[in-house]
Amino acid sequence: MKYQLYYWPGIQGRGEFVRLALEDAGAAYDDVARGKGGRTAMMAMMQGGEKRPPFAPPFLKAGKLVIAQVANILFYLGPRLNLAPKDEGARLWLNTLQLTVTDFVKEIHDTHHPVGTGLYYEDQKPEAKRYAAGFLDERAPKYFGYFERVIDRSGGPYLLGREVSYTDLSLFQLVEGMRYAFPKGMKRIERKIPKIVAVRDRVAARPAIKAYLASERRIAFNEDGIFRRYPELDK
Amino acid sequence: MKYQLYYWPGIQGRGEFVRLALEDAGAAYDDVARGKGGRTAMMAMMQGGEKRPPFAPPFLKAGKLVIAQVANILFYLGPRLNLAPKDEGARLWLNTLQLTVTDFVKEIHDTHHPVGTGLYYEDQKPEAKRYAAGFLDERAPKYFGYFERVIDRSGGPYLLGREVSYTDLSLFQLVEGMRYAFPKGMKRIERKIPKIVAVRDRVAARPAIKAYLASERRIAFNEDGIFRRYPELDK
Repeated sequence: MKYQLYYWPGIQGRGEFVRLALEDAGAAYDDVARGKGGRTAMMAMMQGGEKRPPFAPPFLKAGKLVIAQVANILFYLGPRLNLAPKDEGARLWLNTLQLTVTDFVKEIHDTHHPVGTGLYYEDQKPEAKRYAAGFLDERAPKYFGYFERVIDRSGGPYLLGREVSYTDLSLFQLVEGMRYAFPKGMKRIERKIPKIVAVRDRVAARPAIKAYLASERRIAFNEDGIFRRYPELDK
Repeated sequence: MKYQLYYWPGIQGRGEFVRLALEDAGAAYDDVARGKGGRTAMMAMMQGGEKRPPFAPPFLKAGKLVIAQVANILFYLGPRLNLAPKDEGARLWLNTLQLTVTDFVKEIHDTHHPVGTGLYYEDQKPEAKRYAAGFLDERAPKYFGYFERVIDRSGGPYLLGREVSYTDLSLFQLVEGMRYAFPKGMKRIERKIPKIVAVRDRVAARPAIKAYLASERRIAFNEDGIFRRYPELDK
């Protein structure tokens, strides 16, 4: 099966959590909106005549199915890409973890957009500073501390124990993104999450991921995405 | 199977989306943290020795499984409570919709806590006013407009067409909560979402829901929950 991924071109954003899974598994996929006419096609799927229109990108077309929401896409892909266990209890547990990643990502996004997604960052800088301070002191350590504990409880080295899962790939992305956006704050946080850093290193060393990261398919972090480097927010 | 629901006592909050499904189906469940010693038991499941600790309430114990995150709990319960279709494509579609409810709920929460969950509302009132204005003008109409379109495309009267689902129960809760928190703003919005209001009315008329709403099990809306009535935010 060849998949079609629909996501904003030009940023890693939420789409990257799906890309990492597809790339790790060597799955065949088109990154539709990065191709000619792709963005128009993407908008048409949301605003056109689809019987089951997605609210927002990313979404995945898999045969006749159109699946939106990162955690939902990964829930679908997981067993098919060999990045999730097959039994129901373990899949639901992995989904719990991925949905906690989703919550974390939203809070990361809100460090630069606390007052509203419709406004520019420049119009909410004082609020962003206040938000980011609490984020680096409390929220990010809380989320990372939770995942660290989960790895510890599983026996490691991964979230589920001995087998890598799509949520480990998401953890890799969280570490990479936080290092980009908050180099100082993340340095402090990393002292307390050695198991997560080890997951990051293991994922980075996986041959398909390594090849992907070195390719043009991996978009560089930038200030239009989720993880933005605004030094004034990184105290 | 008797379920154990764990959620903060005293508020509807995110737990209510699960309660509505359990109540509608007449499922047997304990609302653990509202009973004696229940809150301590809930904290212990998060911070104690669980092999798969939840990050936050609500979570559901179903036999040996512990399932956290509202959309994940409902994904599990849906077919078991006859509130979701059984085929994979339709379940994933319903999950897409429920995860869009999750995103909406987070933005509703942030109307009173835009700068940080660790701070009091009183410490972020100017920011909340700014956030709430954009929320009522753009975000809430966008989310509701989306669900209205989904009902329209399905042929109605529900999100999936002729059969009610757990996400219709969530839509009911969104309308009730928005009417409580933003009576003026919601009045304007409701003019454009007649199909959602019709879902709300159908759900309210379901015998088990009607009985639940009239019972002591339904906690009243209040200013500790997701939906808070702060008149200064409701322009």
